[in-house]
Order: sequence, then structure tokens, then C-alpha cells
Amino acid sequence: MSTASFATRPLPGEPRPYAFPRFERRTLSNGITLVVAPVHRLPIVTVIAVTDAGSVADPLGREGLASLVAAMLAEGTASMDGEMLALRFERLGTSFSAYADWDVGVASMTVTRSHLADALALFAETLTAPSFPARELERLKAERLAELLQLRTEPRGLADEMMAHFVYAPESRFARPMAGGAAAVEAITARDVGELYTARYRAGGTTIVMAGDVSTDDALALLEESFGVWGGSAPAPIAVVDAPSPGARTVHVVTKADAPQSEIRVAHVGIPRIHPDYFRVTVMNAVLGGLFSSRINLNLRERNAYTYGARSEFDWRRAAGPFVVSTAVASEATAAATREILAEIDRMRSEPITEEELTLATSYMSGVFPIRYETTAAIATALANLVVYGLDDSYFDTYRANIESVTTTDVLEAAQRHLHPERLRIVVIGDPAEVAGPLAALDAGPVSLYDAEGSPLGS
Amino acid sequence: MSTASFATRPLPGEPRPYAFPRFERRTLSNGITLVVAPVHRLPIVTVIAVTDAGSVADPLGREGLASLVAAMLAEGTASMDGEMLALRFERLGTSFSAYADWDVGVASMTVTRSHLADALALFAETLTAPSFPARELERLKAERLAELLQLRTEPRGLADEMMAHFVYAPESRFARPMAGGAAAVEAITARDVGELYTARYRAGGTTIVMAGDVSTDDALALLEESFGVWGGSAPAPIAVVDAPSPGARTVHVVTKADAPQSEIRVAHVGIPRIHPDYFRVTVMNAVLGGLFSSRINLNLRERNAYTYGARSEFDWRRAAGPFVVSTAVASEATAAATREILAEIDRMRSEPITEEELTLATSYMSGVFPIRYETTAAIATALANLVVYGLDDSYFDTYRANIESVTTTDVLEAAQRHLHPERLRIVVIGDPAEVAGPLAALDAGPVSLYDAEGSPLGS
Repeated sequence: MSTASFATRPLPGEPRPYAFPRFERRTLSNGITLVVAPVHRLPIVTVIAVTDAGSVADPLGREGLASLVAAMLAEGTASMDGEMLALRFERLGTSFSAYADWDVGVASMTVTRSHLADALALFAETLTAPSFPARELERLKAERLAELLQLRTEPRGLADEMMAHFVYAPESRFARPMAGGAAAVEAITARDVGELYTARYRAGGTTIVMAGDVSTDDALALLEESFGVWGGSAPAPIAVVDAPSPGARTVHVVTKADAPQSEIRVAHVGIPRIHPDYFRVTVMNAVLGGLFSSRINLNLRERNAYTYGARSEFDWRRAAGPFVVSTAVASEATAAATREILAEIDRMRSEPITEEELTLATSYMSGVFPIRYETTAAIATALANLVVYGLDDSYFDTYRANIESVTTTDVLEAAQRHLHPERLRIVVIGDPAEVAGPLAALDAGPVSLYDAEGSPLGS
Repeated sequence: MSTASFATRPLPGEPRPYAFPRFERRTLSNGITLVVAPVHRLPIVTVIAVTDAGSVADPLGREGLASLVAAMLAEGTASMDGEMLALRFERLGTSFSAYADWDVGVASMTVTRSHLADALALFAETLTAPSFPARELERLKAERLAELLQLRTEPRGLADEMMAHFVYAPESRFARPMAGGAAAVEAITARDVGELYTARYRAGGTTIVMAGDVSTDDALALLEESFGVWGGSAPAPIAVVDAPSPGARTVHVVTKADAPQSEIRVAHVGIPRIHPDYFRVTVMNAVLGGLFSSRINLNLRERNAYTYGARSEFDWRRAAGPFVVSTAVASEATAAATREILAEIDRMRSEPITEEELTLATSYMSGVFPIRYETTAAIATALANLVVYGLDDSYFDTYRANIESVTTTDVLEAAQRHLHPERLRIVVIGDPAEVAGPLAALDAGPVSLYDAEGSPLGS
């Protein structure tokens, strides 16, 4: 090619303005809240139904029930069995998926516009008239128990479970795994499933989000047709206990004999998603351990070569989810890596980050923002979160400005307010013979030993 | 709301026409092929560089080299180390990722339009001037060896590896894992890495795909600037051996003592991606085992409750990848499940599928088609595949018509031509004490036993 074409080379300049899609709210005659984002790029629509049926609704001793109820929705309705349901969704070029997270039950599908009405009828039947066949419940329970067994053999899954166990007060639902333990899952009966469904899956507590090739009026009409006969007022709100386990910093070593590696979690109870410090904390965590170029990752991975990767996160929930630093290191590096994690948390609270660190974090978050919401599924999920967490309708339009307005002083203050070195729980899954001594020598708190099931050793 | 609004209810009708984005081809002055799909929905661009450096280029005894070379690209260049590289990509709100599949090396990033020029400069340096630091090579090798060890403890990974081992002739690269075995990875030296890079990463053999908010002229100018100085003619084509292991149907039991479950693979060598029967075979496989409502899944999961799921696939490569049926069942159901799989393969070849089965498969594939290409990354990946497999430029525009034109007779003929019951390798990872007897009684072929490493027992 000739050099003349260089004249057309685009110059880097200001980002073209990006705007999150417009959306509108409506209410159906039966109380269902509707949020619609008409996005007509492609002839497809994502539908997400959010019910007030998260794992925080699990009764004591039935942990995992909300997850199981969500999974059971697809197993059959009054008029057809699970196989027929799956087949009919497949015939419409889509599939139904459902799960429960801590706060809500979520059901979703993405379908072409031409099949939307038929798919919505099927989607509504699945959500509003499930039959919960006993045979399928037993099958799903067995499947879940096998998964739990598998998860416990993986140090990563065990570490996350033990972290929650040591961080939260025993009476908190958050102290036990979202999908439940073996005893709880085994105890779940068809009656439990029916009771949770009846109590929590109700028109009054449900929001349906539609994003894609549909107008608000059409969405409303389609939903009146498919979901209109569903009833039920909003379920009673749940008082979620997110209290920390009492006491000062402690170290917990859970036995994995002869493990060449240790899984490390350093954690305490964080803050609720709706907290006014959300943006400051998010930027602070990005610098601490949220990005590849974060302090904890550069320290543990690049400077000390203890690990292939280390990260920190605030796990956002309606109530206070945990703040957790996670990594895996060679056994002999366990205490040294823990010391570095504690040092990075302390440094975050004792001196401001540099302007360069701030800019890296904010420009990353600002830069990936439009990439995050490319699909109708991503847009619908974002809007569902808006509803679940009660965020302001202007949230997405002001997101980048909110991120970019965070200062190094904000970050320091957020670290001082929301990182609590004195309350940390240091949880290590590893070989006690190798790691207990060095961890005790760290002087980071009293060290307790546990067997592979998490029961205290020597008691 | 009033019932009047029902008047606005949309009626299901013909699908709105969906069109895959327009794209253009260009050639850079140094021989790089450029494919650009300008899609201006959002201010973002995906860039994919495809090099003729897939795992089929691995020398004998150095299996895994191409994968390692791709992973090493991000570990440093002439002017900066891996940490600085990652940091600079992160600052631009993106990240560099690279891997090798069987046929090609693939590097990619998705970035906002405003950062495209800067990110392309970095992307080009990463691809064209890697420094392959020795310390990072050792770290990546250790990481890879740990992954291989982990994979072998999972019956699923072991089953896939053993399937390839028994299906392909020993001299085929496809007989050994893409990421290599422990001995091969350990043997890889810095010189091996440099040699494969020099031989296969060359402007002449490279295609760059850009999809998103960029015009073809701008893309060409940006690439001349960033990649223009890169040289090298197209690398020599590789003669890929995809011959099957010789002989008639056999059964191979690889020991996993006391396993409560068996992993089952029933497989033979399939056909190359570019085969004229591609659409017929794809529809045939959808009915046989590609969909939830496929015969194999309904038989094993719904009718017999042997398993949580069973599927079949043709693994598409430039040369002939395998046709594989995969499932996991309780040990005592191993022989019965195998019998049902063989029966479904036979039935596919002996009688036509029903019109209903055909419609389900074709309407599913036609229905999900627009949903597949929602993101710039998905569009760019689709175009990269077009290049890798040498498909026609009209491929995406004619896809739905090609799928919908497949008849039940086509499916029967495709099954008769491309399913080979007499050549199958039946591979079971399980407890020989439990499964060997019943498998022998099936009379599906001679049964051989192997230890946990895949070495023949009793020899």
C-alpha cells in the first residue's frame, strides 16, 4: 500500500461517549415489577425474573434449600415433565436456567424476538406452576451431594467454606455454604421445597427484566398475558444476620496432610452493596488486590514469586458480604505470604496510594465499562442488580464519573474505615506440620488447628 | 392496566431478518491478511491475531510446545518484562490473552476505540518481539506440569486423553494431549521455544481480524503502523497425520480402583471441518447426541436414569478430529450404558430420523444463530474460524439456509458415511473388578485392561 493512506490514520482522542441503554419501569396488574431496556441491535431478547428467594431464606438446618428450589423449577410443571419442558425450550432455540444467589432467585433465557411470546408462555409456566416431582428432587439432591463431596476435596472450595465459617457469627446464614452442607441437603424434603416456593415465589416480590428487541408496551402486554394470572403479595422481608464472629485476629489451620501447597484466605466481614462508600472501596480494593497490577499480586507473584496469583475482593450482597484476600502458595512460603498480605493491608491504611496507582485503577474500570454491557444478557443482568440492590436509576449513567471522582484521600479514608486488620481471620488449608510453626512465629494471632472436616484438633 | 393494551400485543411472526456483519479482506504490505468487520454499535473493538502455530507444529517429544510459546508471549518483550506488559494493557482497560489450539496460535484483546492505537502498538510488540525470559519459561513449565498432574486425577481429563490415545495411530500428533505430557513439557527448552516461534510466527502466515468500531481503512492504517515492520514469509505447511489406530472395534478399561462412577468415551476418527458433508453431519449429530433432547441424552438420562447427561460431538479441526460420545455413569450401569450408546449409533445408520426430530434440530440451530454473534469478540472469533478453516466468505450468510435444507435422507446418508460402529474405540475409566466382566459380556469387541497410567496390565 502507498504511504498516502497514512493520512487517514485515526488519532487517539477523547473516548466517544458511551451510554448505558435507556430503560423504563412498569408495574403489572398483579404487582410484578417490570424493567425494560429496548435495545434493537439484534432481533433477540433476554428475560430475567428475579424473585425474593435467595439463600438467606433457607431455614436453619435446611441450608441449600433456595438453590434446590431454583434448580427444581426446570424439572416439571403441572402440564409437562422436565424432559418435555427442556425439549420445548430447545425447539424455540433457547434454554431455561435458574439459580439462587444469597439474595434472590434468578431465572433467565435469551431468545429470538420471533419466539419471544411462545418462550415467555413456557417461562411463565416454569416459574409459576412447578410440580416439583419427588423423583427429580431425589436425583437433584444426589447430584448436589456428589458435588459437595467433590468440592470438599478441592482445597479451594474447602478454603472458601472454612473462611465463611470462621468470619461470620455462628447464627449468620453466611457462615454456612450457599449450596448447604451434606446433612442439610440430605434433610430437605418435598414439603420444604413446596413451602419455600409458596412463601417466596410470589408476583408481589418479583421483578422481570427484559433487554433487547422489544418495546416497553409490548413487553408489558406479553407479560400480562403470560404472568398475569400469577398471584401473591410481596413476601415478608428477611432479617439477615451478617454479624462477625466475635473476638480479635485469629489464625486457623485446617489439615490437608502432606499438601505441597497451602490455600490462604485472609478475611473479615465487609460492607453491604448499597453502602455510600461503594465507589471509594471499589477503587481501594482494585489497588490493593483487585487488578493484575494490584499491590498484593505484584508483591506475592512478581516480587516474591510465592504464587501464580493473589487477589482481594469485597463480595457484594444486600447485607455485608466478606472482604477476602485469596491465594495459594508453596507450603514453605505460607507464613511469609501471610506476612506480606497483612503488610499490604496495613500499608493501605497508613499512607495514601500514588496518583499513578489511582489513575491505573480508575482508567481500567472506566475503560472496561462499555465492554461489560455488550450483550442483552449483560444489560439485563445489570438491571436486575440495580433492582436487587436498590441502586439509583442513574447508577449506570453516573458510574464512570463516580469512579473517576475518587481521590487518593478517599482511598486512604476508605481503607481506614473498611479494612480491619485487628478483626481478620487468617485461614490456611495445608499441612500443619509444615505451616503451624511459622504461622505462630508470625505473631498474627492465636493459631488453632482443625482436622480435614474443620473440627478442632485436640479438643 | 386496562385490557385495551392487549391490542398492542405483538403477534409471533416471521423472524426479522438477521444478517451477520459485513466484512472485508485486505493484505498488508508485509503479507499479513486483514479481515475487518466494522460494527459501530458500541465504541469497542476486538482484535484477534491468528498465526500458523497450532499444536500440530509441535515436534515429536515436545508436545505442548506451541501452547507454551503462546503463553510465553505475554511474559516479556525486548523493551519490557511481563509485569510491565500486563500493567500497560490494564492501564488501557484491556488484557492480552493468547493460546494455541490444534491448528493455530490465537492472540486477542477487546479494547475501547479510544485506546485502540495504543493497545495495538502494545499488542504488536507482544506478538512480534517476545523475549521469552528463561525464568518465566521455568515458571510456566512448572505451572503446566502441576495442571497436568491435576488433570490426570480427574477422570474426565484422563478419559479424554485415553480416548485420543486409543483412537489415533501412534504417529498422529492427535494421539497425544494438546498441552503435552509431563515428559514432553519437562523436555522443552528455551531453544525449542525460540525455534518454534521463529519458524511459525511470521507475517506471511498471520491473519489479523478486527471487529467493532473501526473502518477497514482505519484498521489497515493502524496495522501498517503497528505491525508493518514485522517480516517473514508464510511458514511451510504441516502434513498432519490424522490416521486412525488400526484394527476393528475394541474396548479399553483404564483402572480407577474403587471408582463408584465410570467415565465412558465411545469414539472414532471423524472428518475435517471443511468436509462437504459438514451441515448434514452437524444436524445428524444434533439429533444423535448434540442437544439436550438428543437420542443419546434422552435414552441414558431420561429413559434409563444412568447419568446426569450424555452427549456426542464431532471435534472440528483442519484435519480429522474425533467423533466422541461422552458420559459418566454409576459403575454398575457401565455395560448397559455402553450398549445403549452403540444401539443409538446403529439406529442412526439403519433408519431415517423423524421429521419432528429434524425440525427440532434445525430450528434450534437456526434460532440460536443470531444469539451467537452478539459481541465483537464472538464476531471476530467467527471470522478467525472462517480463515483458519478456509470457509467461503458467504458462509455466515448461507448458514441458516444450509442447515434448513438438510433432509432426513441427508441425515441417514451422513450417518451411514460418517459413523463407523465397526471402528469404534470404547474407553472406560473405572473399576475393572466391577466393569470388565459386563463389558466383555456385551460382545462389543476384545476388552483390554490398563493401569491408572494407561499401561497395559499383565504385559
